[in-house]
Amino acid sequence: MAETQTATVTFGVFDETSQHESRVALTPDIVNRLRKVGVSCLIEKGAGIAAHYTDDDYAKAGAEVLDADTIVARADALGFIGRPDRALVERLRPGTWVIGMLGSFTDGDYIDALSAAGLIGVAMERLPRQLSSAQSMDEMTSQNSVMGYKAALVAADAYGSFFPMMTTAAGTIRPAKVLILGAGIAGLQAIGTARRLGAVVTAYDVRPASRDEVESLGAKFLDLGLDFSAGQGEGGYARALNAEEQVAQQTAVDEKAAGFDVIITTAKVPGRKPPVLLTARGVEGLKRGSVIVDCAASELGGNVEGSTIGTSVTDGGVTIIGAPYLSSQVPNTASNLLARNVADVLAHFVRDGRLAIKAGEELDDALIVTAAAAAADQTADATK
Amino acid sequence: MAETQTATVTFGVFDETSQHESRVALTPDIVNRLRKVGVSCLIEKGAGIAAHYTDDDYAKAGAEVLDADTIVARADALGFIGRPDRALVERLRPGTWVIGMLGSFTDGDYIDALSAAGLIGVAMERLPRQLSSAQSMDEMTSQNSVMGYKAALVAADAYGSFFPMMTTAAGTIRPAKVLILGAGIAGLQAIGTARRLGAVVTAYDVRPASRDEVESLGAKFLDLGLDFSAGQGEGGYARALNAEEQVAQQTAVDEKAAGFDVIITTAKVPGRKPPVLLTARGVEGLKRGSVIVDCAASELGGNVEGSTIGTSVTDGGVTIIGAPYLSSQVPNTASNLLARNVADVLAHFVRDGRLAIKAGEELDDALIVTAAAAAADQTADATK
Repeated sequence: MAETQTATVTFGVFDETSQHESRVALTPDIVNRLRKVGVSCLIEKGAGIAAHYTDDDYAKAGAEVLDADTIVARADALGFIGRPDRALVERLRPGTWVIGMLGSFTDGDYIDALSAAGLIGVAMERLPRQLSSAQSMDEMTSQNSVMGYKAALVAADAYGSFFPMMTTAAGTIRPAKVLILGAGIAGLQAIGTARRLGAVVTAYDVRPASRDEVESLGAKFLDLGLDFSAGQGEGGYARALNAEEQVAQQTAVDEKAAGFDVIITTAKVPGRKPPVLLTARGVEGLKRGSVIVDCAASELGGNVEGSTIGTSVTDGGVTIIGAPYLSSQVPNTASNLLARNVADVLAHFVRDGRLAIKAGEELDDALIVTAAAAAADQTADATK
Repeated sequence: MAETQTATVTFGVFDETSQHESRVALTPDIVNRLRKVGVSCLIEKGAGIAAHYTDDDYAKAGAEVLDADTIVARADALGFIGRPDRALVERLRPGTWVIGMLGSFTDGDYIDALSAAGLIGVAMERLPRQLSSAQSMDEMTSQNSVMGYKAALVAADAYGSFFPMMTTAAGTIRPAKVLILGAGIAGLQAIGTARRLGAVVTAYDVRPASRDEVESLGAKFLDLGLDFSAGQGEGGYARALNAEEQVAQQTAVDEKAAGFDVIITTAKVPGRKPPVLLTARGVEGLKRGSVIVDCAASELGGNVEGSTIGTSVTDGGVTIIGAPYLSSQVPNTASNLLARNVADVLAHFVRDGRLAIKAGEELDDALIVTAAAAAADQTADATK
């Protein structure tokens, strides 16, 4: 990442805010950061306001605040929280770099469309997470971390009792018993936050290695008396269990769950149907007043059988919060991290003052998903 | 509080739940506790459900679950979160004891009405808080404690960044700077909770003694460079400042406030207009994305100039949450503590198996506010 004084690459970010999206893929700090590697920034009007950054903040940092059409016309590369919709893909100039969560593991048609449009797709979801040089680019980690923090806060806020133990003149309040299902990045952050608030925390994950991580945070690991070894999935995500394992796991988790006041499930598998970690029977066994936060809730289902997006209360008095947008609900922190992730990916491809792909380079091979890649050296003429 | 086997006093609690009230003045645990001092309990159907206690829970604990009319007809004493409205006062039998937050400091007419109806008013707000034997009866302390906890949670949930500092591969997140204005019970609990979550906390109160309390919790005391000594008001509450002091204090607080991300104001003075602790100018000085939680927001105004009940966002991007019902939003813990407070007051008046007032006894003299008090010895015949 050599520092240059003259900006030779133009990077654009659109306003992606919607009902459920308050983040932005570029922050004023990052505008400054990118300038140092020869990238000038364009941002759509109003793009940062939901994350508490005004157009003026961007302008002061040296970005140009523009409308979307002008950004389409001028940007060499575009950064997204998600990905451009098909209509926008059609409008982009051939040779434009598209950096985002492209859904390449699950949506080949979309990647084909990017290729057909002559775009260079950089798939953030394909980041080799184990590569230490890639850690500052790891959007999945940064956003899941925010999600886990927020999940614990949302759970504490919805729970009708205290999280911490408290001894008062009017009696002792016992601490909340919190169970975290799924001990990836989000789960570990949820453990830490619930423990900060004074809850007694137990966690479970199918990956045997997670026991040490859970215990190192001071939480207990839920012992189901079952063995799901070789549970580590590709890319560091929890794999889905097979049918027989699922039945055994569900039965055990459902039984153990009854002893907890708050359950947070975090086994989100991008683009795929999330694994069920708590069945309807498990929910039925919970005490009145219990709270579940299901971070994996989606149109495809969630980690909790029958959970939907939003808040519902069962006949048994259990509150179920299906919460797929948690990282967006901490928009400032989430954007600060995400913008850094995207910018560092972009900066990786800035070579001698222009965007270029180097075949055989591990990051390049992993991230570039479009057929246009081979031609990128020609199309990414960033000197105009 | 001698233990007796036969219940000779009947205590009734109504369903007081409403849009903003989820608490209940009796819990199943307390039903058991009261039985041991000779009190049998009546509770209105559905009274506890919002606090996660079912009618069945009460029945199992030994209470009778009844309609309101039957409770009116049978109870010797009634316990309230607030107080009975005028219509209910008219329906109560002369000689019935009414235990609640009666508003006796500010609403003499209401107390006159209780007297005229021949009721014995026990005003929880008059509890001599310094009396160690009265601490388990201190509803103001218990409910303000819950309020302070919840205020910090609500603030953390509304704030668009993290409360804790966090060092990640994508950069370091600085901790939130939280300012607590009003360092009574609620303020101290808010300090503790915000600190648990990892925020850097500063607090301020006009009572000079509060500096030690604030610092003992690990928070900084905000130094305004002003002297409001003799600030301790009656009954342990913060007194309202005089006009000149208010101007000096407001100017200083308003200026200092600009350095904080989150402000929680807790100077609630029961039944009176709350003191303004942050003016509109102070709010204007806050950064975009700042969050204010005003626990004193009411129809009479709040601690923050212009704050109203509910959530609003200023043109400058400051979220103001006027939150007068916070203790009710942790209904289970709040009810557990409140029910114990009310029950211990009731139990204090159970003498030789009946409700009786002992003139000259400090608690009795403080709590009984109705003219019928003198006749209480006769009317409180609890042996029927």
